[in-house]
Amino acid sequence: MTNRVYIATSLDGYIATPGGGLDWLYAVPNPNNDDYGYADFIEGIDAIVMGRNTFEKVMTFDTWPYNKPVFVLSNSLAQLPEAVKNKAEKVSGDLRKLVQQLGTRGYSNLYIDGGSVIRSFLAEDLIDEMTITTVPVLLGSGIPLFTQLSEALTFEHQKTEVLSSALVKTHYIRTR
Amino acid sequence: MTNRVYIATSLDGYIATPGGGLDWLYAVPNPNNDDYGYADFIEGIDAIVMGRNTFEKVMTFDTWPYNKPVFVLSNSLAQLPEAVKNKAEKVSGDLRKLVQQLGTRGYSNLYIDGGSVIRSFLAEDLIDEMTITTVPVLLGSGIPLFTQLSEALTFEHQKTEVLSSALVKTHYIRTR
Repeated sequence: MTNRVYIATSLDGYIATPGGGLDWLYAVPNPNNDDYGYADFIEGIDAIVMGRNTFEKVMTFDTWPYNKPVFVLSNSLAQLPEAVKNKAEKVSGDLRKLVQQLGTRGYSNLYIDGGSVIRSFLAEDLIDEMTITTVPVLLGSGIPLFTQLSEALTFEHQKTEVLSSALVKTHYIRTR
Repeated sequence: MTNRVYIATSLDGYIATPGGGLDWLYAVPNPNNDDYGYADFIEGIDAIVMGRNTFEKVMTFDTWPYNKPVFVLSNSLAQLPEAVKNKAEKVSGDLRKLVQQLGTRGYSNLYIDGGSVIRSFLAEDLIDEMTITTVPVLLGSGIPLFTQLSEALTFEHQKTEVLSSALVKTHYIRTR
């Protein structure tokens, strides 16, 4: 069972501006509309675990963007909108138990998404792989990818690619 | 005139543990004792600007490690020890003026070193180039490389190398 992070950050470790903005990310020229390996990554996961903020952002899109089951981690949302029935499910509670429960349901390779959820998983050492794409900008403020940890977590470097002559995409695996 | 950062950070952007420790950095196996390009970098600079903390750390070394003039930025140190006479000089005051003054003395390519000094230079948009080597570890706490900025600073990606199958070294140039 692997829990994976796949995300872009600024050089100073922010995944969005203070208001959630991603203009700095889309500002990198991408003339061929390359997905930078996203479809391949999604192919390898069984389900997506995201937080309420990410879910609410996705709900503003014109179409539902995922072809894998989505689990929305929230202790405050009463229930998800009818529109996402059969696509998304609300979950809550202890993360380690959640991962086990999803595993018994056949969801062994999870895409962990959204700053708050990623930080919570890292704080409990529940992340096994991270693909981090670094954008050459210092935002100076924003929503951080990482958080304070009680102890250091070591990773093994797997692969680095430079995309669009600008983005540095690196794949790390947790050393256990 | 260029002001350059050349430094290693953890994945979560720390340049040292809370106590200044660098064990995590030296833990990366380096069987051939490769300097990872440090000598070439030093060859290209005229002088080093560092803060008091970095200077005091260097003073604990058995030998003085620099073959270029060192300027120690401090508003609190009265004067530098006699032992570093002709090697290091105390400077203080406005950073932009300091850079100009050093330029008129023939020091046009400065190596800006030490967390506090780097953050001060970045806050005034005085960094022109950064070579950042990312170590595959989340320290979880420590001395940060970056700081809050009043506005975003964009950089151009120049080159990325993977060193010792573990370190991702990337060279960025400020877009002006």
